[in-house]
Amino acid sequence: MPRSDQLKLGTFVYTFGFHPAAWLHPGSDVRGANDLGHLTRCAKVSEAAKLDFMFFADSPASAVGEAGALARNPTKMNRFEPITAITALSQHTDRIGFVATASTSYYEPYNIARLFASADHLSRGRIAWNVVTSDHDETGYNYNREGLAPHAERYERGEEFLDTVFGLWDSFEDDALLLDRESGVYHDKDKLHTLDHKGKHFQVRGPLNIARTPQGRPVIAQAGGSEQGMELAARTAEMVFSLASNIEKNRAFYANVKGRMAAYGRDPDDLKILPGLVINVGETREEAEAKAEELVRLMHPDVGLLMLQEFLETDLHGADLDKPFPMDRMPASAKGSKAMFEELKEFVTKGHTMRELITHYARRHTGNGLTGTPAEVADFMQEWFETRAADGFILMCPTLPSSLEDFTRLVVPELRRRGLFREEYEGTTLRAHLGLSTPPTRHARARGRA
Amino acid sequence: MPRSDQLKLGTFVYTFGFHPAAWLHPGSDVRGANDLGHLTRCAKVSEAAKLDFMFFADSPASAVGEAGALARNPTKMNRFEPITAITALSQHTDRIGFVATASTSYYEPYNIARLFASADHLSRGRIAWNVVTSDHDETGYNYNREGLAPHAERYERGEEFLDTVFGLWDSFEDDALLLDRESGVYHDKDKLHTLDHKGKHFQVRGPLNIARTPQGRPVIAQAGGSEQGMELAARTAEMVFSLASNIEKNRAFYANVKGRMAAYGRDPDDLKILPGLVINVGETREEAEAKAEELVRLMHPDVGLLMLQEFLETDLHGADLDKPFPMDRMPASAKGSKAMFEELKEFVTKGHTMRELITHYARRHTGNGLTGTPAEVADFMQEWFETRAADGFILMCPTLPSSLEDFTRLVVPELRRRGLFREEYEGTTLRAHLGLSTPPTRHARARGRA
Repeated sequence: MPRSDQLKLGTFVYTFGFHPAAWLHPGSDVRGANDLGHLTRCAKVSEAAKLDFMFFADSPASAVGEAGALARNPTKMNRFEPITAITALSQHTDRIGFVATASTSYYEPYNIARLFASADHLSRGRIAWNVVTSDHDETGYNYNREGLAPHAERYERGEEFLDTVFGLWDSFEDDALLLDRESGVYHDKDKLHTLDHKGKHFQVRGPLNIARTPQGRPVIAQAGGSEQGMELAARTAEMVFSLASNIEKNRAFYANVKGRMAAYGRDPDDLKILPGLVINVGETREEAEAKAEELVRLMHPDVGLLMLQEFLETDLHGADLDKPFPMDRMPASAKGSKAMFEELKEFVTKGHTMRELITHYARRHTGNGLTGTPAEVADFMQEWFETRAADGFILMCPTLPSSLEDFTRLVVPELRRRGLFREEYEGTTLRAHLGLSTPPTRHARARGRA
Repeated sequence: MPRSDQLKLGTFVYTFGFHPAAWLHPGSDVRGANDLGHLTRCAKVSEAAKLDFMFFADSPASAVGEAGALARNPTKMNRFEPITAITALSQHTDRIGFVATASTSYYEPYNIARLFASADHLSRGRIAWNVVTSDHDETGYNYNREGLAPHAERYERGEEFLDTVFGLWDSFEDDALLLDRESGVYHDKDKLHTLDHKGKHFQVRGPLNIARTPQGRPVIAQAGGSEQGMELAARTAEMVFSLASNIEKNRAFYANVKGRMAAYGRDPDDLKILPGLVINVGETREEAEAKAEELVRLMHPDVGLLMLQEFLETDLHGADLDKPFPMDRMPASAKGSKAMFEELKEFVTKGHTMRELITHYARRHTGNGLTGTPAEVADFMQEWFETRAADGFILMCPTLPSSLEDFTRLVVPELRRRGLFREEYEGTTLRAHLGLSTPPTRHARARGRA
C-alpha cells in the first residue's frame, strides 16, 4: 500500500499543453492531436517519474467563436476521443493510470459501463472515469438539444446515471467466474445479477456483459464545486479535480467535501482532492519566468481575445486592440472566478489598451499559477499537502512534453528528497497508486449485513 | 493496389470460437474473455497469414435463457466491448484491419463518429464500423425500452444515423490541417465545416472535433439481408457480411446487392461481399470430421437445448431429453433458415429423441458448414469466388486460436498455390487491403461538380 503521507500526482492532458500557444512551442509536437506517438512520449515520461495517472479532459464539441481565432487555438478543434486514447496508451505502458472524461448528459449508462469496464480489463486495472454533466451550450447542439439542459436537470440525470453504472458494474460478483472445464460451468449463476433499474431517466435491466474488473470497478473522478457537486463527490467520487485558487479556499473545500463523507459511511482517505496547477519551473526564477513569457509572446492576440471573451461572456469581436476596453461591453459579473473579474475591471479602468488587457489576462490565466525554482514549487506543494488543502496535484503542463519533462527532472527529485513522493510504484493498479479501497459489490454488502 | 482476383479473408471473433463448446476445448483459452493476450494471439496468427481483418460481432446485452444453461455458454455473457478491444489490439499489430460492431439504435451519432474516427487515427487507418440496428429484444431492455423498436423504425433511425456520421466525418477536408507554426495557423478555416443536420431523429450541429482520418473515413460494414438492408448496403456499405447458405442463393444475393449500386453512382468493386463460413479442416477428411465431432461431444445438452429453443422460438424447458420431441411445442415456422426448419421437422417425425435432435442440430448448425481437407476447402472457396457468390469469406473458426491456426497452416498455402490469396500485404490500411476507394468529402464532391 502507498504511504498516505505522500503526494498523488497526475499529468493533465490537453494535447499540446495547457497554454493556448503550446502548439507553436518547440517543446510540443505539432502533429500530436492525431499521432499517438506524442501522447505515448508523455505517458512514458510520466511513468518513468512514477506519476499516478494521466488525466484526459474532454468536451464532446468543438470550441465556438470567430473561425480565424479558432484556427489559431486547435486543442478543442482536433483531439482524440479519450476512452479510445487511454485504451491505446495503456498498451504502451505497464503501471501508470488513466482518467478519461465522459458526459452523463450525452451517453447511455449501459454504453459507459461497458466501455470503462472493458478498458479496465484491457489495461489490467488502471482506468478512471471522470464523470461530468457538461457545462457548455455547444455540447447540446451535437445531441439533439438547443443548448444545455438546466444544471439541476443535468445533475439529476447524472446521479441516476452514475448509480445505474455502479449497479451494472456489480453484475458479476468478484468470485463469479469459475472457468471450470471439468464441470463445464463457466460462471456461478447465483453470482451473476440482473439489475432491473427503473428510474426517472433510465430503465436498464442488465446484467452487464463483462465480468467485474481488475479494480473491482473503475475509479470515479469528478470536478464540480457546486453544492450538489460536493455532495455527489462525498457520496461517490474517489478523485476530485478542483482548481488551485488560494490555499485558504482550497483548505475549506477540502474540509467541506471530506467532512460530508462520514454521512455516507465512507473513509475520507477514499477520496483524493487534487487541484489543477499550472507550473512553470526553471533552475532559476528568471529561467522559469522566461518560459512563461515565451508562451505569452507566442500567443496571437485573436486567441487571447477569444479567451477573454469566453471569460467575460461578452462579444469583443471587432474591438480595436490599441484602444482602451469598450466599457459598454463589460458585463456586470462573470460566471468564473470573481477575484479575476474584479482584477480585470480594475486593470481596464487604468486606461490600458485591449492588447495590454489580453496579455495581462493570458499571463494571469495560464502562466501565473506557479512560476519558480524546484524548491519553490516543492515548498508550495508541501504546504498545500501538509495543511490539508490538497492530497496532491494535477499538473497542467503549459507545454507537452517539455513542461512535463521539466517537472519530472527538476521537481520530482526535490519532492523525493523531502519524502513527499514515491521512488517506485508499490502496486499495479490505479487504486493501489492512489491508496483507494475497492468498494464491494452491493451483493457482497447485502450478505455482509445479513 | 491488391489484385481484384484474390480472396478477401477475415477472422470472426467470438472470444473462444464460434462453437458454443469452444471454451471447453484445449485449443481455446478459458481466460480469453478478459485477457487481451488471447485476442492478441489470434490477431498475430491472422496478421502472420496476411488476412485482411478481424471481425468483432457484438450485442449490447447478455444472452437470455435458463441461468444454468447460460452459465455453460459464456460468449455473450462476458466479452470485451468491441471498440475498446480493437483499439487495444491495433497497438499490438501493424497491418491487419479491425471491424467493430456498434448499434445505431443505442448510440448517438456524435459519439460513434468520434469513437471510430479516433480509433482510425490510433490504428493508422485500419478500422471499420459494422453498422447494425440490433435485432434482439434483450438489447432494448438495457436502453429504456420494452424490447426492440419495430424493424422499419430501427432502419429509419439507422439510415439517418449513418448519414449524420458521414457528415461528421467530412467536417475537416483532407487538406484542412496546415500545422503552420510560422503563420500560427493550425487549420484552414474554410476547410472545416459545421454540419447543421436537422432530421427526424437527430439534430447535430458539428463540426466533429477530430480531423479526417487516415482512411478518409472508417470502412463501413453491414449485414442485413432484408430488402431495406440490401438497399442500404448498396448505397453505403463497403463490406457485407452474409451467411454462406448455398451457392445459388449467395450468387443471387451477390448480383442483387451489387446490381443496386449503379443507382448510387458506386462501383461494384467498392463493396466486398463476404459470407461467414464455419470451417473444420484437417490433413484428411477423417481428421476434419473428428475435430467437428469433438466439439459436439463437449457440448452440454442444456446448451444445445438453448440453441434449439432460440432457433425454433419455442419453450423447450423441462422437456425429457430421452423422449421424442413434444410436437405440441413445434412452431408453424421459424424466422431463421427455412431449409433448416424443414430438416428439423423431418428429423423429429422419424421418432428421434430430444437428445438426438439437439446433437443433430448442433452438428448442422456449427460444424457442418465446411468440413474437409485443405484442397476441399480451397475448392469450395474458389468456386464461390470465381462464380461470384463471394468476394471472400469471414472465417467462423469453431475454436480460437486452434481452428484459425489450422486454417492458416493448411488452407492459406493451398489458396496461395492457386494464386487466390496474397503473399504479402500491399498497403497499410484496411481500405488498401480490401481494394476500396476513399469516398471524397461532400465538400470536395461539391467543388468537383462546380
